[in-house]
Amino acid sequence: MPREITGFSNPLVKQVRGLREKKLRKREGLFLAEGLRILTEAREQGVLPEMVFLASGARPHPLAQELADAVEQAGGEVILTTPDILSKISGKDNAQAIVGVYRDRLKPLAQLDRAAAPIWFVAQAMRDPGNLGTLMRIGDAVGAGGVILVDDCVDPFSVEAVRASMGALFTQAIAQASWSEFIAWLRTGPGQLVGTSLNTDQDYQAPHYTAPTFLMIGNEARGLPEDYEAACDLLVKIPMMGRADSLNASVAGAVMAYEVLNQMRRGNG
Amino acid sequence: MPREITGFSNPLVKQVRGLREKKLRKREGLFLAEGLRILTEAREQGVLPEMVFLASGARPHPLAQELADAVEQAGGEVILTTPDILSKISGKDNAQAIVGVYRDRLKPLAQLDRAAAPIWFVAQAMRDPGNLGTLMRIGDAVGAGGVILVDDCVDPFSVEAVRASMGALFTQAIAQASWSEFIAWLRTGPGQLVGTSLNTDQDYQAPHYTAPTFLMIGNEARGLPEDYEAACDLLVKIPMMGRADSLNASVAGAVMAYEVLNQMRRGNG
Repeated sequence: MPREITGFSNPLVKQVRGLREKKLRKREGLFLAEGLRILTEAREQGVLPEMVFLASGARPHPLAQELADAVEQAGGEVILTTPDILSKISGKDNAQAIVGVYRDRLKPLAQLDRAAAPIWFVAQAMRDPGNLGTLMRIGDAVGAGGVILVDDCVDPFSVEAVRASMGALFTQAIAQASWSEFIAWLRTGPGQLVGTSLNTDQDYQAPHYTAPTFLMIGNEARGLPEDYEAACDLLVKIPMMGRADSLNASVAGAVMAYEVLNQMRRGNG
Repeated sequence: MPREITGFSNPLVKQVRGLREKKLRKREGLFLAEGLRILTEAREQGVLPEMVFLASGARPHPLAQELADAVEQAGGEVILTTPDILSKISGKDNAQAIVGVYRDRLKPLAQLDRAAAPIWFVAQAMRDPGNLGTLMRIGDAVGAGGVILVDDCVDPFSVEAVRASMGALFTQAIAQASWSEFIAWLRTGPGQLVGTSLNTDQDYQAPHYTAPTFLMIGNEARGLPEDYEAACDLLVKIPMMGRADSLNASVAGAVMAYEVLNQMRRGNG
């Protein structure tokens, strides 16, 4: 049976609201996802929340009801609450009518199956949650396997990253590693490491990309460190016709990934 | 001589801070840009702020000093103030040490020189300032002429859009028009209107794009209205290999624009 919570000071509401902070997400190993679209996407991937909060009163959307039923059957908890408390949990004035609490999805690098997809993203010290979420959404679009977070990246389970991913968080594998762990793992199998850089004249359309291609996207302000560039199999440059010398990090990821996908669609791979 | 302001309640501080609101930007015809990088970019484009605020105390960066001198010579005003007041103006805790107040840059559609660039963006009811700013940055990168805002778009002069544009706001022409005004203007000269859509099977790499290409990007949630799609010369689809059916609006703009640029670089145009 769903439980009903109407008090702002309920300890569970406080605890779940705390998941908007990275420290508490880490401690609990949980994160928040909001909105029927993202929660349904997760469910279609076979991922159910451990707890789901629904706005009480209004009759729930049929998909929300199905989701709630599935959560209960799986031993999770369904909580009916007020729109005000949902807003408090999500930190938005105009909250979604459904919020899920999920077990965090970090995979050990050793469990990634690199052969499962032709493209992988490597995000290096990416700091903007919108960029990281958008990169996962692009990964889904190009049929990538997932994203490997190297160095001090923003938390992929932050509310902003989850929102920007539009549910791709549940289709993309997510791993985290130090640079030395990553490069050691990479060299135990096939894989072309590709960096975008200002320190090369090689046009990004010139090379022949082979699966699996690992597209490494550097920090928004600084780009890739020199020794990381030196470790790449290919350094390429996206042409810049105007005054700026760089693209937004996730945009650069998209331009690169579609080039790789387009080559593979033409059957080069 | 620079004027010094140290009081939070100074009317000029209040007035300038008010430029974070669209209503006041419209009324004054002014907007804010922050940070030495963006202000220097503007200056290199020949655009000076009417007023510039600098943090007093610390010795200014040489480029900030040059900018301040240029503003004074042009009859503008240079104001030294405290970091706290700069934070208040910019609405950020960790404010940039320089903030400029610029005259708004909307151009009448009739003044756009479509032959000046091979690519133009048309943003239709784009609601996210980060998307619009990023689209301008992409426009700069691909050598586009600018962006035409159709229907109810977010203000291109909002602080968030200016920031996301990374200065491209000053290299890209910006016009605003109703759909009927735009389409009437478009048909008075050469120009291929291209829409991305889920309602077509035509791959985005299939057509031959010809300059000037007008790339129309629809609203983030709804895409393009049906009658707008019907008015396009070409409807194309970016391949989606995963579960999602769309890309982020500015990412879709980038994928499209690089395809057009790549065709033109190969000399098709």
